[in-house]
Amino acid sequence: MNTKMIRYILGKMLGVEAVLLLLPALVSLIYREFSGVFFLVPAGIAGVIFLLMGMKKPENRNIYGKEGMIIVASAWILWSVFGALPFSLSGSIPNYLDAFFETVSGFTTTGSTILEDIEALPQGMLFWRSFTHWIGGMGVLVFVLVLTTLDKKNTMYLMRAEVPGPEKDKLVPKTMSTARILYGMYFGMTAIEVILLLLGGLNLFDSLIFSFGTAGTGGFANYSASVGYYNSAYIDGVITIFMILFGVNFNLYFFLLMRDWKPVWKNEELKTYLLLILSASLLITLNMNHLYANPLKAFRYAVFQVASIITTTGYATADYTHWPMFSQCVLLLLMIIGASASSTGGGMKVARFMMMAKCVRRGITQMIHPKAVSIIRMNGKKVDTDVLTNLYIYLMAYIGIVAGSVLLVSIDNMDFGTTFSSVLTTLNNIGPGIEAVGPNGNFAHFSPLSKLVFCFDMLAGRLEIFPFLMLFTASAWNRKF
Amino acid sequence: MNTKMIRYILGKMLGVEAVLLLLPALVSLIYREFSGVFFLVPAGIAGVIFLLMGMKKPENRNIYGKEGMIIVASAWILWSVFGALPFSLSGSIPNYLDAFFETVSGFTTTGSTILEDIEALPQGMLFWRSFTHWIGGMGVLVFVLVLTTLDKKNTMYLMRAEVPGPEKDKLVPKTMSTARILYGMYFGMTAIEVILLLLGGLNLFDSLIFSFGTAGTGGFANYSASVGYYNSAYIDGVITIFMILFGVNFNLYFFLLMRDWKPVWKNEELKTYLLLILSASLLITLNMNHLYANPLKAFRYAVFQVASIITTTGYATADYTHWPMFSQCVLLLLMIIGASASSTGGGMKVARFMMMAKCVRRGITQMIHPKAVSIIRMNGKKVDTDVLTNLYIYLMAYIGIVAGSVLLVSIDNMDFGTTFSSVLTTLNNIGPGIEAVGPNGNFAHFSPLSKLVFCFDMLAGRLEIFPFLMLFTASAWNRKF
Repeated sequence: MNTKMIRYILGKMLGVEAVLLLLPALVSLIYREFSGVFFLVPAGIAGVIFLLMGMKKPENRNIYGKEGMIIVASAWILWSVFGALPFSLSGSIPNYLDAFFETVSGFTTTGSTILEDIEALPQGMLFWRSFTHWIGGMGVLVFVLVLTTLDKKNTMYLMRAEVPGPEKDKLVPKTMSTARILYGMYFGMTAIEVILLLLGGLNLFDSLIFSFGTAGTGGFANYSASVGYYNSAYIDGVITIFMILFGVNFNLYFFLLMRDWKPVWKNEELKTYLLLILSASLLITLNMNHLYANPLKAFRYAVFQVASIITTTGYATADYTHWPMFSQCVLLLLMIIGASASSTGGGMKVARFMMMAKCVRRGITQMIHPKAVSIIRMNGKKVDTDVLTNLYIYLMAYIGIVAGSVLLVSIDNMDFGTTFSSVLTTLNNIGPGIEAVGPNGNFAHFSPLSKLVFCFDMLAGRLEIFPFLMLFTASAWNRKF
Repeated sequence: MNTKMIRYILGKMLGVEAVLLLLPALVSLIYREFSGVFFLVPAGIAGVIFLLMGMKKPENRNIYGKEGMIIVASAWILWSVFGALPFSLSGSIPNYLDAFFETVSGFTTTGSTILEDIEALPQGMLFWRSFTHWIGGMGVLVFVLVLTTLDKKNTMYLMRAEVPGPEKDKLVPKTMSTARILYGMYFGMTAIEVILLLLGGLNLFDSLIFSFGTAGTGGFANYSASVGYYNSAYIDGVITIFMILFGVNFNLYFFLLMRDWKPVWKNEELKTYLLLILSASLLITLNMNHLYANPLKAFRYAVFQVASIITTTGYATADYTHWPMFSQCVLLLLMIIGASASSTGGGMKVARFMMMAKCVRRGITQMIHPKAVSIIRMNGKKVDTDVLTNLYIYLMAYIGIVAGSVLLVSIDNMDFGTTFSSVLTTLNNIGPGIEAVGPNGNFAHFSPLSKLVFCFDMLAGRLEIFPFLMLFTASAWNRKF
């Protein structure tokens, strides 16, 4: 275990956060809010730590997968620890645990909130809250990669833990240049959304807030009513489309940029993802259209909510806890499925579910025809046994975390829908759940224990479970290996 | 596909049901109930089918795993189709779908009921309802095996589909003689329970009813208040102990009978199963003891309910829907875990969960030390890769069935706790769930579609999913293989 290198990189990353904290301070300055000074305090502390830990490169710079995973997991926690300070110091969120919850929710692009009165927050705080989504969106490390200079050999391992989803293919080996292109696309798409929202009549501040939340598939809004605040078909439409776009595998945009259409056209996950959105939207429209003036309006709300949930964004234009239970169960299912692999979205990922379905089909076939040989393919390519084994283990660890979390949260004695959906929505980095944590609810009323469980779940979910579990495994810290 | 042999065996099995139907007819005669004649009608039809289909042995008597699975799945459905007739013909359960639900619930040892007024049923009907549990308990086929004479070679395949749980080891190869011993133990243990209940002051009828329900881990009672009707610590104790005993792997009793203590003493699943019961009971007692006069009384209700749920029996002495949510979540978790492999209980089985936990642990170890070789062991023996692959596929199919069932049942627009727990309780063959399907509730208010879904789930759960899925797979019926 190369602890010196871990310390060095974490130090560098706190330096980055120090710089990032200056942006909301600037926003506060523009709005002449005194609370802006509270961004400077953590920025100063993080800056000092950077000067102490992140300046001198260690001699042995070799890091491997294990170190990479520990760095990633620690980075999210450290960033949240410091990122929460402005909220609690300024008194915007007086309780530090609540502030920490809100910041973890931001960086992990979850979007669950403990705020009962969002509009009461100063503009600078609201900006920082949503900005954490944007930073978290492409992952602390892909972001930092572009800003810092690490050896090419090492960055690979970092990205392996970072880029979400079961498949890494083309993206990983190119590291730095890829990261820059990736970051450029992310920046560009966010900018286009900002412009489209400005054209829809939103002011610059709101456009940034909602674009940050969409790009990171986070879901924090500066209004309690979320996107429903505008009650505009145009705004709903723009955000729906961008939510769907940010839930697509970014490798595919990379191919599009290279004018290589075939892998995009042939991508099974993309087809399934779009088909899921379409069919879920239609089913929900059929199920709840009696609640709205006309089926078109019902469809508008349905497709918005479906896109918001499957991409794990968590914005709302309607309080779906009033929709029939079937619609809510469709949404709960989409919560678990999640967005595409290698997108900014969370959840288990469409690709994982497709592989699971293929495994079950193969299992039945082999039971009927024991001698038949059948290979599991994705996009025409054979899926490695290693990938499948990882999938199984991921699934089992996921179930274990859900079970354990539900048990701990149930101590708060809320109803079952709240207990179960609050765990699902945090572990899958969505934001709202059903019942008391629905789009009009919040997470303020849970006990400190439950809030810690949710923080754990948000981090575990965002890091695809394993880097985070590894952090808590004693033998990972054994120097011998 | 040897369809002649399938027809022959199914014919024979209907013959067995014809004979079994005479027993409740006798009970009706004793109680001088006219409704007894309605047992004779299906007995007659089943008898005629037996004479037509089950008398002449086909020349080609070779059947394999695939045929075995199809026979088992068809047998449960056919038995339920005929077994439901007395209820609907007599008007005890006028709606045939409801009667079918009740019978499937009986044969699959689930114990979910659509009856709103259990006490209104004639004694003969109540007897038949609980008798189906006892028949179902050891599995239609282990039961039939003892009564019919099949080639030794073939019975092996039948038992492979029948005996529940991931491990078959010693039980399978010995077939007929083993089946007789197994059946003897089952009969003996039931008899002991009957005697102990008689000693507790129950009349013979009640003793039989509750012993049938315990032995089959079914849970049908002849009182709405279930075992709570007696409000007796002795009765609670006897039934608690026997529920736990019937949830143990029957292979272990086999070893005990052979005076071979070591495999029993070393059995990991048994230890985990008992530890789960003890720790869950203590946790629930801690959580809900303020609702009862003293902790001892609370523990009595807790341990009864824990044993009832983990063994998937479903008896109740208290309405646990009034317990705090934590207690209910512990019970929900036990619902999924289920009893030991090769017991009469349902659920996913303790052994499967132990293997899953071991897989996750191995996965983390291998991520930290990629070169480390680690083998998964159960009871000191290496677990085959095939067993693990089957486990993964089982788990994924299980999740798929839960998701699909919840979606279909949610159309009925019940609350989420009812929707989710009704699917869990039927798929795991337990009986009651939480909210509207709690121990004081019933399944009467669901739509016909939901009732069909529950029937599917009960059958799929009892048959460990795959034989049942196979029945619905077109290629299983392909003659070529």
